[in-house]
Amino acid sequence: MVKQERAARTRQALIRAGAEVFAEEGFVRASLTTISRRAGVSNGALHFHFASKQALTEAIVAEALEGVRQIVRDAGARGGGPLEALVEATHRLLHRIGDDVVVRAGFELSDDPGAGAGPGLRREWQRWVEGVLLQAGEDGWLAEEVSADDAATAVVAATTGFEVLGGTDRTWLSEERVAGFWDLLLPRLTGRGPRRH
Amino acid sequence: MVKQERAARTRQALIRAGAEVFAEEGFVRASLTTISRRAGVSNGALHFHFASKQALTEAIVAEALEGVRQIVRDAGARGGGPLEALVEATHRLLHRIGDDVVVRAGFELSDDPGAGAGPGLRREWQRWVEGVLLQAGEDGWLAEEVSADDAATAVVAATTGFEVLGGTDRTWLSEERVAGFWDLLLPRLTGRGPRRH
Repeated sequence: MVKQERAARTRQALIRAGAEVFAEEGFVRASLTTISRRAGVSNGALHFHFASKQALTEAIVAEALEGVRQIVRDAGARGGGPLEALVEATHRLLHRIGDDVVVRAGFELSDDPGAGAGPGLRREWQRWVEGVLLQAGEDGWLAEEVSADDAATAVVAATTGFEVLGGTDRTWLSEERVAGFWDLLLPRLTGRGPRRH
Repeated sequence: MVKQERAARTRQALIRAGAEVFAEEGFVRASLTTISRRAGVSNGALHFHFASKQALTEAIVAEALEGVRQIVRDAGARGGGPLEALVEATHRLLHRIGDDVVVRAGFELSDDPGAGAGPGLRREWQRWVEGVLLQAGEDGWLAEEVSADDAATAVVAATTGFEVLGGTDRTWLSEERVAGFWDLLLPRLTGRGPRRH
């Protein structure tokens, strides 16, 4: 049991170190030696857990995916209707991307043609946003003239932009900036007119 | 003169081939041999024009930057006011990113930590969007309760998202999708109420 716990901790340290090194150097340039050293383990220990850089990438993306799923579950569980869940989930996602190197690396690896991670993580988020806005439309939360498709396009594009721009300028991940986006968009989605400050 | 023309054509072929190979393989993996072969020139000819991959990257980003500048100049010259220029420029930019591998690679290289291109191209676009919306606010084109800053945040984030998502799914660069975004956002910016279809 103690041995299993230690193995799980080592695996976790490698995932974190891999995410850090990939974020700093890019997938192709990052060496497994740098990653194992960063994690404080031997090369052999790394190879015991991950047969290749590709296997490590897959573990990072899987953990990031689990993070995104948890965020949308938590946001949805608050019970304030689909638009409130959507606003809450975007805030949580962008905060998490700023705060958690594994989630950040998961998204960055999705864009790297060399990493072979594919767009699955982005697609997962996109599908959730589309589903929530479709439901908002059906349940009467959206203004009549607003298309759920256009709303999903705008929200998915904007959150992707926040995430990518946040890679070189962290202010894009700030709560203020995300709140400014919703101050602009939400009154249009609900048709209830602008909130005055 | 004929010799100069030939040199200019070779340089242009190398920039295009470099953009194609970087887009397919990523900056670090792309080899200069693949690029010179794609351009139909010798390795020596490549080295005559570009001393390194870095120099070729800089030429690609410089050409993409010139493309972006031309787009915003042309959009601004149509004389329909700042918001019309903004809508027109986003359509032109995203169409161009889909259509012109050099402009597309310029943006992709901006995200690649290995390429060392830096975020200059994205910053140029961001500054232009911010300036146009500031002017729109000053000249009374924006609804009173709309913040020019929030509007710039939304437009820069969304256009960045369209560009990045368009890398793996070209429908994000379609005129329809960009028009849907503006159908949603423009009535909110002007405060003139939704366009009914």
